[in-house]
Amino acid sequence: MAKQFDVVVIGAGPGGYIAAIRAAQLGQSVACIDAWSTVDGKPAPGGTCTNVGCIPSKALLQSSEHYEQANHHFAEHGIEIKGVELKLDTLVGRKDTVVKQNNDGILYLFKKNKITYFHGTGSFLAHVDGGWSIKVSGTVDEDLVAKHVIVATGSSPRALPGLPFDETQILSNDGALRIPAVPKKLGVIGAGVIGLELGSVWRRLGAEVTILEAMPEFLAVADQQVAKEAQKAFAKQGLAIHTGVKIGEVKTAAKSVTVPYTDASGAEQKLVVDRLIVSIGRVPNVSGLGVDTVGLKLDERGFIVVDDDCRTNLPNVWAVGDVVRGPMLAHKAEEEGVAVAERIAGQHGHVNFGTIPFVIYTSPEIAWVGKNEQQLKTEGRDYKAGSFPFMANGRARALGDTTGFVKILADAKTDEVLGVHIIGPQASELISEAVTIMEFRGAAEDIARICHAHPTLSEAMKEAALAVDKRTLNF
Amino acid sequence: MAKQFDVVVIGAGPGGYIAAIRAAQLGQSVACIDAWSTVDGKPAPGGTCTNVGCIPSKALLQSSEHYEQANHHFAEHGIEIKGVELKLDTLVGRKDTVVKQNNDGILYLFKKNKITYFHGTGSFLAHVDGGWSIKVSGTVDEDLVAKHVIVATGSSPRALPGLPFDETQILSNDGALRIPAVPKKLGVIGAGVIGLELGSVWRRLGAEVTILEAMPEFLAVADQQVAKEAQKAFAKQGLAIHTGVKIGEVKTAAKSVTVPYTDASGAEQKLVVDRLIVSIGRVPNVSGLGVDTVGLKLDERGFIVVDDDCRTNLPNVWAVGDVVRGPMLAHKAEEEGVAVAERIAGQHGHVNFGTIPFVIYTSPEIAWVGKNEQQLKTEGRDYKAGSFPFMANGRARALGDTTGFVKILADAKTDEVLGVHIIGPQASELISEAVTIMEFRGAAEDIARICHAHPTLSEAMKEAALAVDKRTLNF
Repeated sequence: MAKQFDVVVIGAGPGGYIAAIRAAQLGQSVACIDAWSTVDGKPAPGGTCTNVGCIPSKALLQSSEHYEQANHHFAEHGIEIKGVELKLDTLVGRKDTVVKQNNDGILYLFKKNKITYFHGTGSFLAHVDGGWSIKVSGTVDEDLVAKHVIVATGSSPRALPGLPFDETQILSNDGALRIPAVPKKLGVIGAGVIGLELGSVWRRLGAEVTILEAMPEFLAVADQQVAKEAQKAFAKQGLAIHTGVKIGEVKTAAKSVTVPYTDASGAEQKLVVDRLIVSIGRVPNVSGLGVDTVGLKLDERGFIVVDDDCRTNLPNVWAVGDVVRGPMLAHKAEEEGVAVAERIAGQHGHVNFGTIPFVIYTSPEIAWVGKNEQQLKTEGRDYKAGSFPFMANGRARALGDTTGFVKILADAKTDEVLGVHIIGPQASELISEAVTIMEFRGAAEDIARICHAHPTLSEAMKEAALAVDKRTLNF
Repeated sequence: MAKQFDVVVIGAGPGGYIAAIRAAQLGQSVACIDAWSTVDGKPAPGGTCTNVGCIPSKALLQSSEHYEQANHHFAEHGIEIKGVELKLDTLVGRKDTVVKQNNDGILYLFKKNKITYFHGTGSFLAHVDGGWSIKVSGTVDEDLVAKHVIVATGSSPRALPGLPFDETQILSNDGALRIPAVPKKLGVIGAGVIGLELGSVWRRLGAEVTILEAMPEFLAVADQQVAKEAQKAFAKQGLAIHTGVKIGEVKTAAKSVTVPYTDASGAEQKLVVDRLIVSIGRVPNVSGLGVDTVGLKLDERGFIVVDDDCRTNLPNVWAVGDVVRGPMLAHKAEEEGVAVAERIAGQHGHVNFGTIPFVIYTSPEIAWVGKNEQQLKTEGRDYKAGSFPFMANGRARALGDTTGFVKILADAKTDEVLGVHIIGPQASELISEAVTIMEFRGAAEDIARICHAHPTLSEAMKEAALAVDKRTLNF
């Protein structure tokens, strides 16, 4: 007989496993189905984020940052090093250990919260008495019946037409995290978060990295002042970035990949590299889910259609994370997962899409929340802007890391903070204060009046807030 | 004739120079008198903080942290180093450069804000027509008359009775920042912020460091759970800390310093070291100020007596920072400086003493704001506590820095956040979110509901807030 659950979650990425835990906390009987495996076939819950995304990239970014410091910055600290040798196996192995800690952590959480975990894929069979019939195919095949289903199947890297990922020469985020030797020349198509982070990792480890971007503007999604500062910093580091290019037909040979492209000026160019990362976006994972079998509605780009509350067109079927509209961010998926679990339990979960922070973990780090200047101009909203450079921040000077600034945008009349944009050291951590202020609908004046510890990078936030009122104290 | 000013500030530390700038911004004519000099006699505004405190210690902490990473942690990242050599001159020289950037920055700010800077000491002569007559003795002697005076003369290290600082063997924070060679054995009396930070610096650079503390409890000022975690971490690093000791008569010889002491068990002990840092507290700087001449009231410990608004017993004489009651923290001084400048201009400056953050820049860093558990227990207040270990935080694992936790204390009934206590990576930056929440009198639930970027250390704050309600998602 089919096993009965109040809630079945399909996918154990950040959206799925968090939804499962929250539902279990609220007294539901919960199952979570996930197909990710370790190289030796063991369960590897955590989705893209844990296995081939946020977590492993941050491990490599940290290791490669140490390598960069040792090679280029230790001398100024009076630390002289005779010879630096890179053991890439160890570096990548450490990353694998970090990933495994996270996989194991989630398995422990499932156990702790009495969530039944199935290692396999889940698909809709039919609407039956008591809910939805779900088939699990994997280590063990099972038939489940769920009162509620939460689809959290995530997304996959989009390939260039006619150029499938082989993860050897043509790399997605997955292969780019486990290149067996530092390539001499590495190409990256797409200067988004993934391209910039992984391009940075391999540049620091010694590769000559060229990034090609189709959009005419660099980091069009970010505040353009931040994007300009980033482009300057990356160029200084030796990351070659070409925007406004048109990629031709990529050819692979035994030991090289050739990328013909038309540059922004219209001239024909040719990039020859050892390996090529293609990071041009991601597509929602819906195949094998039984979408057609039960009539789950998708939009024209293949995303599951949901309302603001993550309800699909089917009763008691919900969808969260990368497989639905909105930014493909782990923490956005988590918030949706929590909210859906609470709604199922009769509570009133809510996600504020206006205060979801964005982070790019390059060096300098980039983080923002709320609206940028381009958006406010387009909306015709009257605003004030204030910024403060880390160059004038004592902690940044002491750290020896003074690139970038904090920029705050506030409503011209009410002074309410509308957006905060940071490029610089620890931007990923500094943004949490900005999100907090925006959640309370605080004013720039509020930030300016709040005591910030000295000497910290967070003082740049206070000074940027003072700058909104043209009264910086330290600049 | 005496030069007339609306406001004369005595002292250009964080309290003084910030007060001067804010007063100038508000349209006052302002002078600032400060006696700090560089080794070659040039002006060195910024006070203890810039010259021999916050800033240089953070520069040394950063450099020594790199050295520590290179020696002990690079191997796990796959970075193999043949030989690491320490050029202490370069390391200390870099610190001096950072200090000079800050000195020059303040001189630039004085110019930019049209503040007249006098390099020398300032003292009260008399109450005269038009205000207070102030004598400047220094590079150039001047007589000033000020409508308002802000005293921001700061504090000095307290010596052990009969053991003056020679800055060669017996070191204050000043000498401890410029030891010419890494001592083999270094003693520290006093396990407060300064003793712990500077002890950490020299331990990382190779000294065998022993810290003696008179109080029976380690870091009695911190939440005791944080203190315990810190003591464990420092012990693991090889920092020997003995609490509950009674220091005997310290003897200096040509090449050693002998510290006899009674340990906590009552046994007689003897510590023999090459150099000794004495960091047992600081005393307010009032000598030479003309306190008696004008009858400026001091308390029994020598602090200038002020009310909550920093008013002294004399009309239009204010005092801020280390020279008055309250914690000796640069940012507390700054807040007072701003508030006094605003009050002088007829505004309503306010300092919330309940939300001033405390930071100790060791590794792990320690930071807190608000009440700790001991205090809440003493007050008999009903509270809930929630904590979350960095061990369960993805970013901390990726960084390879998982010591410590975030702990949140909230009112048992209203859930209002009463205190946040952090020990771990970037605690100094993470605390800004906690201060912000407390300024808005937010609840633990608020933090728990606010989206935090993944993967960041700040997620530990969110999880600690969830822990207050016993519903952590990742632990």
